[in-house]
Amino acid sequence: MQHRTIFFVSDQTGVTAETLGHSLLTQFDGVEFRQVTLPFISTAQKAEEAVRRIDATFESEGVRPIIFSTLVQEEMREILKRAKGLFLDFFAVFLDPLEQELGVKPSRAPGRAHGMMDLNSYTLRIDATNFALANDDGAITRDYDRADLILIGVSRSGKTPTCLYMALQYAVFAANYPLTDEDFERNALPPELLKHKHKLYGLTINPERLQQIRAERRPNSRYAAADQVEFEVRAAEALFRRYSVPYIDTTSRSIEEIASQILDETGVERRLRP
Amino acid sequence: MQHRTIFFVSDQTGVTAETLGHSLLTQFDGVEFRQVTLPFISTAQKAEEAVRRIDATFESEGVRPIIFSTLVQEEMREILKRAKGLFLDFFAVFLDPLEQELGVKPSRAPGRAHGMMDLNSYTLRIDATNFALANDDGAITRDYDRADLILIGVSRSGKTPTCLYMALQYAVFAANYPLTDEDFERNALPPELLKHKHKLYGLTINPERLQQIRAERRPNSRYAAADQVEFEVRAAEALFRRYSVPYIDTTSRSIEEIASQILDETGVERRLRP
Repeated sequence: MQHRTIFFVSDQTGVTAETLGHSLLTQFDGVEFRQVTLPFISTAQKAEEAVRRIDATFESEGVRPIIFSTLVQEEMREILKRAKGLFLDFFAVFLDPLEQELGVKPSRAPGRAHGMMDLNSYTLRIDATNFALANDDGAITRDYDRADLILIGVSRSGKTPTCLYMALQYAVFAANYPLTDEDFERNALPPELLKHKHKLYGLTINPERLQQIRAERRPNSRYAAADQVEFEVRAAEALFRRYSVPYIDTTSRSIEEIASQILDETGVERRLRP
Repeated sequence: MQHRTIFFVSDQTGVTAETLGHSLLTQFDGVEFRQVTLPFISTAQKAEEAVRRIDATFESEGVRPIIFSTLVQEEMREILKRAKGLFLDFFAVFLDPLEQELGVKPSRAPGRAHGMMDLNSYTLRIDATNFALANDDGAITRDYDRADLILIGVSRSGKTPTCLYMALQYAVFAANYPLTDEDFERNALPPELLKHKHKLYGLTINPERLQQIRAERRPNSRYAAADQVEFEVRAAEALFRRYSVPYIDTTSRSIEEIASQILDETGVERRLRP
């Protein structure tokens, strides 16, 4: 197995470098990557320090580290390029064609993507996160009028992480409501949900997988019993179909996939992007 | 003001394309960008549909849209290249140098970065998120032994969103504990925190900003009164200094900046990257 050390170098948080690097690295099987983030490289001194660290890695491992850089400032880039590694420069490649196309000079100010450039955006994300928390798990303090989306599904089908992700990533206001035996016995969605039927989106999950998740949480409980889990999943899906609520199977999907699919299908607008 | 429509085109969620595009676009002032994500472009038919949509935008706006593509499959890329827009191809640029460096052929399988390639990673993120929720706001069900970090600070200093972000993004287990009058009157951190002193990290915030945030939440309350807010912030900072707890001012920092700074300073390892 080949081993390689990866450095994500940024004059700001490093989130962009990590995301771009990660999606490239997942294309290469059979290599084990050790990943190191070097954020806030915003002075020549810090840049020199980063070079020393990269060079030391090269000396000890005998193979060039790979450097994913989102450095914007020319000075820092020039320093980092001297490091004994493969230097992949995200901004160098794309800034020029964009400058030509837009006819506008790039600011070359560091840290704009994930910095606090815009108090309004920041407040939106926090508000959306607080909204997701306050409207989690069918909480009493429901505020469905303000919701962009209301996710419904049985306990542990993925509602909460999806709502939090959509809030933090896109400032989408997503509430969630757990379907329980009470709903299944009535074989009806509660009136407070039906008032907002166009906002509803269902999550379902493979019963075996759900049983496993619940058993880790509460072993040997009715909550985690095979027949109970099977019953809940079937009953939830029957309700989705009865009310024509669109739904998605979360079993083998990541949070990003679930969120992206729901937003794409419903047309709910992302208020911001990462 | 120049207007331009941006398309993020992906055979998977679109998260990488959004991240790349967003960090480049923030470099150009004086342009208003309308942003559209076209995820799951995984068939020729969907690719043709995307081209039609981009072309229609060109016709109606009279100016070329900009396309950030993370398409991996050759066939879809070739189709999208025909669209009447500036096509910026993320994978085309970086896969070749990486292939040469690693001596490994890229898989060109779509959707690896934010897909469910790895059940273990997925479970870690969910576990970290559940941990953050269960250990939020000094909840009774504390489980500080499992925590990587315990964030402390006054109410609304940014603890909860930071913990949730670190969980979802990096699978870092972060608990949080709100400092209150009780702690300030004792002028001491509670013993359950001191047991884990090396895991503590403080958040502070500008009193005027905090007052504003609290006033939106509970107008005309003691909670939002200038002298109370001022007192709490000063007392919290005094406790941080007294116990040599490192701390960060969150006032003009984004969640990404706060998280990145804390992880960089403490050396807490990211269990995964986005």
